[in-house]
Amino acid sequence: MDIMDIKKYAAELIGTAVLVLFGCGSAAIFGSQLGILGIAMAFGLSIVAMAYVIGGISGCHINPAVSIAMFIDKRLSAKDFVLYVVFQVIGALVGIALLALIISMTSLGGIETTGLGANGFDSASLVGLNMTGALIVEIILTFVFVFTILGVTESEKYGSVAGIVIGLVLVFVHIMGIPLTGTSVNPARSLAPAIFMGGIALQQVWVFIVAPLVGGALAALVYRFFKVADDAKKSKKA
Amino acid sequence: MDIMDIKKYAAELIGTAVLVLFGCGSAAIFGSQLGILGIAMAFGLSIVAMAYVIGGISGCHINPAVSIAMFIDKRLSAKDFVLYVVFQVIGALVGIALLALIISMTSLGGIETTGLGANGFDSASLVGLNMTGALIVEIILTFVFVFTILGVTESEKYGSVAGIVIGLVLVFVHIMGIPLTGTSVNPARSLAPAIFMGGIALQQVWVFIVAPLVGGALAALVYRFFKVADDAKKSKKA
Amino acid sequence: MDIMDIKKYAAELIGTAVLVLFGCGSAAIFGSQLGILGIAMAFGLSIVAMAYVIGGISGCHINPAVSIAMFIDKRLSAKDFVLYVVFQVIGALVGIALLALIISMTSLGGIETTGLGANGFDSASLVGLNMTGALIVEIILTFVFVFTILGVTESEKYGSVAGIVIGLVLVFVHIMGIPLTGTSVNPARSLAPAIFMGGIALQQVWVFIVAPLVGGALAALVYRFFKVADDAKKSKKA
Amino acid sequence: MDIMDIKKYAAELIGTAVLVLFGCGSAAIFGSQLGILGIAMAFGLSIVAMAYVIGGISGCHINPAVSIAMFIDKRLSAKDFVLYVVFQVIGALVGIALLALIISMTSLGGIETTGLGANGFDSASLVGLNMTGALIVEIILTFVFVFTILGVTESEKYGSVAGIVIGLVLVFVHIMGIPLTGTSVNPARSLAPAIFMGGIALQQVWVFIVAPLVGGALAALVYRFFKVADDAKKSKKA
Repeated sequence: MDIMDIKKYAAELIGTAVLVLFGCGSAAIFGSQLGILGIAMAFGLSIVAMAYVIGGISGCHINPAVSIAMFIDKRLSAKDFVLYVVFQVIGALVGIALLALIISMTSLGGIETTGLGANGFDSASLVGLNMTGALIVEIILTFVFVFTILGVTESEKYGSVAGIVIGLVLVFVHIMGIPLTGTSVNPARSLAPAIFMGGIALQQVWVFIVAPLVGGALAALVYRFFKVADDAKKSKKA
Repeated sequence: MDIMDIKKYAAELIGTAVLVLFGCGSAAIFGSQLGILGIAMAFGLSIVAMAYVIGGISGCHINPAVSIAMFIDKRLSAKDFVLYVVFQVIGALVGIALLALIISMTSLGGIETTGLGANGFDSASLVGLNMTGALIVEIILTFVFVFTILGVTESEKYGSVAGIVIGLVLVFVHIMGIPLTGTSVNPARSLAPAIFMGGIALQQVWVFIVAPLVGGALAALVYRFFKVADDAKKSKKA
Repeated sequence: MDIMDIKKYAAELIGTAVLVLFGCGSAAIFGSQLGILGIAMAFGLSIVAMAYVIGGISGCHINPAVSIAMFIDKRLSAKDFVLYVVFQVIGALVGIALLALIISMTSLGGIETTGLGANGFDSASLVGLNMTGALIVEIILTFVFVFTILGVTESEKYGSVAGIVIGLVLVFVHIMGIPLTGTSVNPARSLAPAIFMGGIALQQVWVFIVAPLVGGALAALVYRFFKVADDAKKSKKA
Repeated sequence: MDIMDIKKYAAELIGTAVLVLFGCGSAAIFGSQLGILGIAMAFGLSIVAMAYVIGGISGCHINPAVSIAMFIDKRLSAKDFVLYVVFQVIGALVGIALLALIISMTSLGGIETTGLGANGFDSASLVGLNMTGALIVEIILTFVFVFTILGVTESEKYGSVAGIVIGLVLVFVHIMGIPLTGTSVNPARSLAPAIFMGGIALQQVWVFIVAPLVGGALAALVYRFFKVADDAKKSKKA
């Protein structure tokens, strides 16, 4: 394996660990006092940070739903898609392990009391959203998130602000999504706390793996429609 | 119809649907716990997202008050003005339909209990603003919003940050406007929930169609004054 | 008077009116539910909006403390300094008049109940800051605000983000300052509500005229020290 | 001593004073009403302000953990590392002295009642984090903060937005860190209030000196791994 590959995968691992630790950590440790906007900003600004340090190395996907879209849009090879997802999941597990360790050193009463920022529906949703609703919501949230990423990273013009834009999009996707499902839009971010928590989080986690991947793929297809139209226009002009 | 036209109108439809779903959704689903700043950010950051993905396609107006100003400022043809508005309204209806669907799958008790983020005055205003007040407030809010859009999109210099700036302006327009009218500044955003809710929201909706259009047109006229002055200066120099 | 001059003064008038209406309005209308961060963002993001639309016309000072610093730094003529301040004060009066009008159309009980976002000390400070404290605090807040403006507007490099930076600085200056004095850092912003409110606000307003002007002048002097050092270095190299 | 050196050290002194006064001040004066997000933004946006005014002079480290990383990454000489830290500590003491002075002029009851935004663990942590936990948390928080700074300041590409990015990272590092340790990530920011407060803050301060320096050094080492990989790739290509 080439050293540049190792760099890319290490970058995805570190980036996903940071996103999951800070995002889920903000929700689990002090979420009720912090409020929805604060949790949303912890997730969103984690992406901002990572975009500017690992963006140039791996593209800073740190999310299988982003990687599947980049694969469909032909910006990522099949091999890299698989390995990105593997290292994203490992990173998420590292992030959640660190969070569980930190919580164990507080007087908060362990992960049973605090949770680990797991996603959920029915009784695990703040507003009692059902399973079908959770699937629909996560597809929509991920579609909007990934569609924006595809757009803002396409053109050189937005190079300097792309990371800020992507972070701000993740903020508003969380603002509406937290009361509904806790907002996944990222299978790696959901899988890791589900494995640590077990129980209902683990039983429901398939929704937060399937729906974000569907939403990400859908974003890539709609985005392609806009690009194909562009190409048609260009060939007509030529 | 040219494929580039279809693209533009589809972009306006999608963009308006996202703005309305996330903005009105944040207000309707969990608005009281989220707070005014959180709702304001949901509206504002939706624009940020859409600006960077559809901005290059349609200009990302997603608002008839923006389109009327662009028409007056001669950046949009009469035909496109009409069709933009049509697709913005369709997009807003799609956004609100999705929101109503999501709410129906929660334990929140339906749109009668939650509302759909409709705008209003008198008893429908958090601070009891009367009808004349609502007209004045919406004209002012829209003037400030559209005036800024006209300025920041004129020069190439601000190309990379224009979407962020426009989103942040929508945030502060909501911070002051939410307690007064719920903040429309966008006839499409107001019409869609009014049609779904009926009753007082539908009776009052004309205010939130007329005032934003007046505010947008006024912004274009004041902006033209500054540009005409510029041209006078330039011809004097030449 | 040249048409370009009229443009500049009109821009300062409109900009100051927007800042004062939205900033003071957010505090007066619904400030207690909105919270300090929300009020701080209303003030800060108003500057962001105005910077990108009138920045290219007048420099978007909309604040006599900024204009005095620009005058000392030789970026503004004596005549323009005087006329900028005059139009800033007129703009602030327009903003407060609009705010008083809006409040009179609500059920909030008039400006006696809500106030108009006036600044104050002693019993008019949320934490009982005394007069000397208010002078010191306003000098420091204005120094930091204006010092940053002088830096970020000097270089072309920051042209596209300068308006965002200045707005974010005004946000944090308000976060600490609101409990202390309500945060003036702007004599025009303080004078207008004091004239409308009379009483204690008017008696105390001299502090919020003198201290911001001192803070702005101090910023210009410290900034000059850094520039003089630069020039010394350059002439040594040459 | 060269005049350019005096400028650099003066810039670090002023910048650190501003960061500490506004960050710790927001926490001490009205922190409970302001909330975690507000305090986090006060710290983060202070960095934004200072980055755009003193960034071109000293690099705006205003934090020994940043300076140690820049020293390890060979962007700062040994002499400058020592003198930067000295002036950062002096700046932090100036900031805290101003804060103590301001508090003494309010009715808040002095620094015994309000505190000065000191960091802590065990009973001094909002969630009872123990000492080992505090060491781990501060190493992680500082690692993420400094790792991002190293990345975003390396390339010219991000020159215009680097200050905004660094500020936003400091915001999210505070969102998760405030309930745990109050968030140091900066030995100078922790030392100054500990000296003024004495007692438990002074006994615990070593954690907030050692851990941020370790986290900053670790960030420089991991960052070097990514750069070495880059160089290996480049020499392979050549």
